[in-house]
Amino acid sequence: MEAAPRTSNEKAGVTPLLTFSILSSFLKIHDKMKAAAMTLKKLAVDDPRRVRHSLKVGLTLTVISVFYYVKALYSGLGQSTMWAVLTVVVVTEYTAGATLYKGLNRVIATLLAGALGLGAHRLAALAGNDGKSVLLGVFVFLLAAMVTFSRFVPEIKARYDYGATIFILTFSLVSVSGYRVEELIGLAHHRLSTVAIGVAACMATSIAIFPVWAGEELHNLVASNLDTLASFLEGVGKEYFEQKLESHKNLEGASFLIGYKSVLNSKAMEDSLANFARWEPGHGQFGFRHPWKQYLKIGALARQCACSMQSLNGFISATEKSEALTNSEFQQNIKTACAVMCSESGKALAELASAIRDMRPPTAAAGHLGNAATVGSQVKMMGPSETTTVEEVLLYA
Amino acid sequence: MEAAPRTSNEKAGVTPLLTFSILSSFLKIHDKMKAAAMTLKKLAVDDPRRVRHSLKVGLTLTVISVFYYVKALYSGLGQSTMWAVLTVVVVTEYTAGATLYKGLNRVIATLLAGALGLGAHRLAALAGNDGKSVLLGVFVFLLAAMVTFSRFVPEIKARYDYGATIFILTFSLVSVSGYRVEELIGLAHHRLSTVAIGVAACMATSIAIFPVWAGEELHNLVASNLDTLASFLEGVGKEYFEQKLESHKNLEGASFLIGYKSVLNSKAMEDSLANFARWEPGHGQFGFRHPWKQYLKIGALARQCACSMQSLNGFISATEKSEALTNSEFQQNIKTACAVMCSESGKALAELASAIRDMRPPTAAAGHLGNAATVGSQVKMMGPSETTTVEEVLLYA
Repeated sequence: MEAAPRTSNEKAGVTPLLTFSILSSFLKIHDKMKAAAMTLKKLAVDDPRRVRHSLKVGLTLTVISVFYYVKALYSGLGQSTMWAVLTVVVVTEYTAGATLYKGLNRVIATLLAGALGLGAHRLAALAGNDGKSVLLGVFVFLLAAMVTFSRFVPEIKARYDYGATIFILTFSLVSVSGYRVEELIGLAHHRLSTVAIGVAACMATSIAIFPVWAGEELHNLVASNLDTLASFLEGVGKEYFEQKLESHKNLEGASFLIGYKSVLNSKAMEDSLANFARWEPGHGQFGFRHPWKQYLKIGALARQCACSMQSLNGFISATEKSEALTNSEFQQNIKTACAVMCSESGKALAELASAIRDMRPPTAAAGHLGNAATVGSQVKMMGPSETTTVEEVLLYA
Repeated sequence: MEAAPRTSNEKAGVTPLLTFSILSSFLKIHDKMKAAAMTLKKLAVDDPRRVRHSLKVGLTLTVISVFYYVKALYSGLGQSTMWAVLTVVVVTEYTAGATLYKGLNRVIATLLAGALGLGAHRLAALAGNDGKSVLLGVFVFLLAAMVTFSRFVPEIKARYDYGATIFILTFSLVSVSGYRVEELIGLAHHRLSTVAIGVAACMATSIAIFPVWAGEELHNLVASNLDTLASFLEGVGKEYFEQKLESHKNLEGASFLIGYKSVLNSKAMEDSLANFARWEPGHGQFGFRHPWKQYLKIGALARQCACSMQSLNGFISATEKSEALTNSEFQQNIKTACAVMCSESGKALAELASAIRDMRPPTAAAGHLGNAATVGSQVKMMGPSETTTVEEVLLYA
């Protein structure tokens, strides 16, 4: 009988504790939700095309679904609605090029593998009822192993990877299904047409409604990478070499000094965009066979350039720390020369970037590069012997 | 009547030409086939696991197909065979981690989206026959748009991208299908169990038969990258600084000078391996929560190191061309010191690589680094003033 009040006391202590812990976990969840909402908002504001893409996917899927839903109700197709919906979900990608790549791969692989599967069926039927399933099993094994192995070939991996998967899939499905060949032909025809309708719907939306071209993305990425490098050089020229003459301002962590890092890791992105761009039809200023490979070359050079900037940046932060720079007249001259070389190379890069953007010959770049070279040869003249290279004079400074 | 002999003459001229062109195109095809065969052979010899993987895929698919083929014949399941086959083809990947990632994503997304789809069906049924399809359309639109947008969040992209696709797919399929809810539950149960069987088969093959662990691949990749960097430094120390003292041997294009380039572009590979490694159970010396992120940090440092090597390589090829190195005693001393610093740093890196490989503390690395530092401070002593840094002395040399 004594237990009752104690329990009540415990309850009185436990309830606020429970309320508090529930409240605090609610607050935690609220904070997390808020953070997630901020992330989503930032994603949307940074690139509104993401929102547009999401709405596009929803729209395509709804149109295809409703169309088939209604059709299935009236004509009793039932099962085949599925393939169009499945195709839309799996094929739609962010850029038009990626959607085209997947869509074309899917249609062609389905067609080829369907035909081959029918052939395998007919061949296996010759072996009688017992041999048929054994033969079909052997066919599936051989084809799956061979096509899977072919996916390790870099060219196939880059261009037909998705097609290879769909090829194995369709061949296996056709071979495995327990239908007679006459039924199969009808089924294959039906399935191919629904897949084709799904692919056509994806392609139409991705090309006609606010298209995001992989080619254009690549074009802009390469130009903006060059711009980042240019701002590094111009920043170093102005902030480091010129201002350094007067004050010892600390430059560590300055934004222009960090930008090049994003350029260093751009290879994977550029490669995949260039792969997708090849599938796109001509659009805007880009022809059907626009030289996308040249962009990759510029990208590789830009990364090499960014590498050198990393070394330069390492040197700058080392001298920032040591602060032990002597300022002889010779060094002053060299510094002024370096400032000019950096600024002029930076301007040349910026000109190249804007020339790529506007698709015109980079006329002003040669002038800036010429200026940099002139100053470079002046530096060379300051050296002790006639055979000294610019690098050696800079090393002496 | 005169035309006949001329035609015959032309024929006599045309036939060899035709034969020749057919023959030459056959030869061309033969050459291409030969080249392709060589590529395939090289792929197989370079990494025999590729062949094993292909055979594994063939085997899994055949077992699942035949099992279902036989079952379908006896119990008349027909349609549902498809889902197990489809799952096996789509889920199987090269590494165990990637297969687990896709398999778990697929099962969980199918389960969640199936339940949600059933709920949506029941909710829409409340709106009567006319409102039902409209409501379902709205649901599909909202869900597809929201989930598609969530795929832009980097964390979701890295871990649940495939799940998001399957989620949209299953939800749309369940919503669109024109069945009554009672039929749907049976169908969903059936479909989920076939998908689960397919996923289980993939996982079992990828883990039990010659597994290729993404974690182990990452482990080896990081170690071998460090080894590449080590061989660069040791090569430069021995071949460039030491031998250079006697002869002007041309080093351009030496293999140890190029190796670092593969390290520069390893980021994408490392990131995806680390993502997949997280899905893998403990295996061998790697626990379930092995610190995969630490490998990414080492990888980033290795790339930074490779960047500096690119600068050093650029400097070496510049001096290779100029050949105008004076050999004062001071420079000789500096060069010997550089040779030691390079070799010792290289040995330290090699020790780090082998320590990672054997999973032991890199005891010998500190000694080598100490040697390099000692020589570095000796170089510092050669400088004109006490405040000079090693870099500055090297610049003077």
